[in-house]
Amino acid sequence: MPLRPITLDDVESLAVGAFILGTGGGGDPYQGLLNLRSLYAQGARLELMPPADLADDDWVAAVSEMGAPLVGLERLSDSRVIARAVALMEEHTGYRFRGIMALEIGGGNGLAPLLAAAHLGRPVIDADMMGRAFPEAQMTSAAVGDLQPWPLAAVDPRGVETVVQRVPTWKWMERVSRKVCVEMGSTAATCKAPRTGAEVKRWGIPGTTTKAIAIGAAVRAAQARHDDPVAAVLAVEPGHVLFRGKIVDVERRTSEGFLRGRAVLEGTGEWRSAGLAIDFQNEWLVAWHDERALATVPDLICLLDAQSGHAVGTETARYGQRVVVMALPPPPVFMTPRGLSFVGPRAFGYDMDYRSVFAS
Amino acid sequence: MPLRPITLDDVESLAVGAFILGTGGGGDPYQGLLNLRSLYAQGARLELMPPADLADDDWVAAVSEMGAPLVGLERLSDSRVIARAVALMEEHTGYRFRGIMALEIGGGNGLAPLLAAAHLGRPVIDADMMGRAFPEAQMTSAAVGDLQPWPLAAVDPRGVETVVQRVPTWKWMERVSRKVCVEMGSTAATCKAPRTGAEVKRWGIPGTTTKAIAIGAAVRAAQARHDDPVAAVLAVEPGHVLFRGKIVDVERRTSEGFLRGRAVLEGTGEWRSAGLAIDFQNEWLVAWHDERALATVPDLICLLDAQSGHAVGTETARYGQRVVVMALPPPPVFMTPRGLSFVGPRAFGYDMDYRSVFAS
Repeated sequence: MPLRPITLDDVESLAVGAFILGTGGGGDPYQGLLNLRSLYAQGARLELMPPADLADDDWVAAVSEMGAPLVGLERLSDSRVIARAVALMEEHTGYRFRGIMALEIGGGNGLAPLLAAAHLGRPVIDADMMGRAFPEAQMTSAAVGDLQPWPLAAVDPRGVETVVQRVPTWKWMERVSRKVCVEMGSTAATCKAPRTGAEVKRWGIPGTTTKAIAIGAAVRAAQARHDDPVAAVLAVEPGHVLFRGKIVDVERRTSEGFLRGRAVLEGTGEWRSAGLAIDFQNEWLVAWHDERALATVPDLICLLDAQSGHAVGTETARYGQRVVVMALPPPPVFMTPRGLSFVGPRAFGYDMDYRSVFAS
Repeated sequence: MPLRPITLDDVESLAVGAFILGTGGGGDPYQGLLNLRSLYAQGARLELMPPADLADDDWVAAVSEMGAPLVGLERLSDSRVIARAVALMEEHTGYRFRGIMALEIGGGNGLAPLLAAAHLGRPVIDADMMGRAFPEAQMTSAAVGDLQPWPLAAVDPRGVETVVQRVPTWKWMERVSRKVCVEMGSTAATCKAPRTGAEVKRWGIPGTTTKAIAIGAAVRAAQARHDDPVAAVLAVEPGHVLFRGKIVDVERRTSEGFLRGRAVLEGTGEWRSAGLAIDFQNEWLVAWHDERALATVPDLICLLDAQSGHAVGTETARYGQRVVVMALPPPPVFMTPRGLSFVGPRAFGYDMDYRSVFAS
């Protein structure tokens, strides 16, 4: 069966939808979008392959730009560097990758496999390992599935190339690769542990590239019609609006390769006189209504600009922005007790259980 | 020509001599010695190969335990881990190493190739890349010779294995590998960039294992005779005694994978009423007489226990120890302008030129 071409219009929608699924993190896809516009203008053509088309013994590369989103605003990503991470992994393992998938569909990383694929001439696999964005290496469906965490290839534009060849646990992969990433300048292009076709079919989160394109297309169509973009997202995704308001304060610090802090919102409309505070570690983690957690990871907490429907990133949220806070359901793999041990509130240091917005 | 066997008596002398050449750093060889006694008791037999016996296209592994000496007192080195670093490099590169050499002859690292060789059944090459100990990865004759700085394999006892596959400069190798080392607990067993036989013959510092054995044997023989061990060292090495005194203060901190600080001494005998302060970064760097630098890197500044003649390490120097401060000449490769740019006082942040104790 011929693969589905990814049009430049799909890429434009993917950039919008991936940033929404990024829940504030994963980096702004805008630079990747500019890169892909240029690559398409030079003749690049990309195709999307459903995971079901993979043979069990195919090898798939999982790529991401690792690091603090704020740094991505200062050091532009380069498609050749992410392609080099994949090539380094092929040299290191001797594998030939059948296709390239996103580690995380959320944010700029949703475009990372396209950037690599444009140079390497491989299809993009329509799946990822997060279904959103998460800050740490062990916060993936691959870790929940107890798949092998190693090796990992990390490269930077200066020509620093590192392979983490073996680790005893996912958490050790996070620790060691994070330090390498910080030394590279808190951002590194990475090719994660290669996955077999069988692993992608069993543990990958399927269809997330298609989903991000659909969300982005809905927002873009609403914008073109001057319709409410939030309603357009809710028409294609089973989300809940949690809050509408204005950002009145943002506390932000970059430490240990992460962007951490808290945004404070004042309500508008029906939420007038109410407040909301949202903690983040690269991504929005917990939305607080006074002392009560209104929503927590792994539910997707998405801040959208009230006018444009575009995602508001943790690195660019600023005083005065009018936003809609929306929750989207997480991939089922993260809602099990084992899944929550990797990405639930306690995994981020909060002393509370996960209660899904979608359970009530 | 048959290779020279390394007897257990040689190993006992090597441990004493290597610590003296360590100029306070490189780690106390005592744990490595215990390890080798045990390996010899189990039947291990080692041989020493002169670099001249290498073919130009042989490959040689250069090994060292990287990190802060203080940590080595708490986490014992394991001969299997250093052997694993060599094996990982062979897996990564596809090379078969002809022999194993020390990166630095000074301190415990002078024994590191023996520990690996005992497991891997290869000869120890009688050469190193420092002729002493230095704290940073680019402070080697290989860097002065502008040899390729990569790849580097680093492993720890937990099973964390990392390869720094490529770097633009030696300084980047230091930066990235140091961060990996710190995350492994500020100590890591490393196999440095493989060297060809031609490179070892051109840029290696020849005969340093033999030299360390000779120094240690002289000290041990003097001890057995109740003679002055310092005089015994001076009988086999062209050293100068700079100072005799008592340690009255040590300021010490472990940061960024290094042990840094300063020891203060009060003179005894002919140095009575004089003082000496010695800065260190793993190794003794600069000996200060009031405001005047009495000796600086790359001259070897060696503190010996006045009674035993054993080296005093920067991590164990303590109040009340009576010591002799001695200078030994550095390898010629470090006395050129290019060599000094890697290991002279300015390379350690001091605003002064190198003036050798041996030039006056």
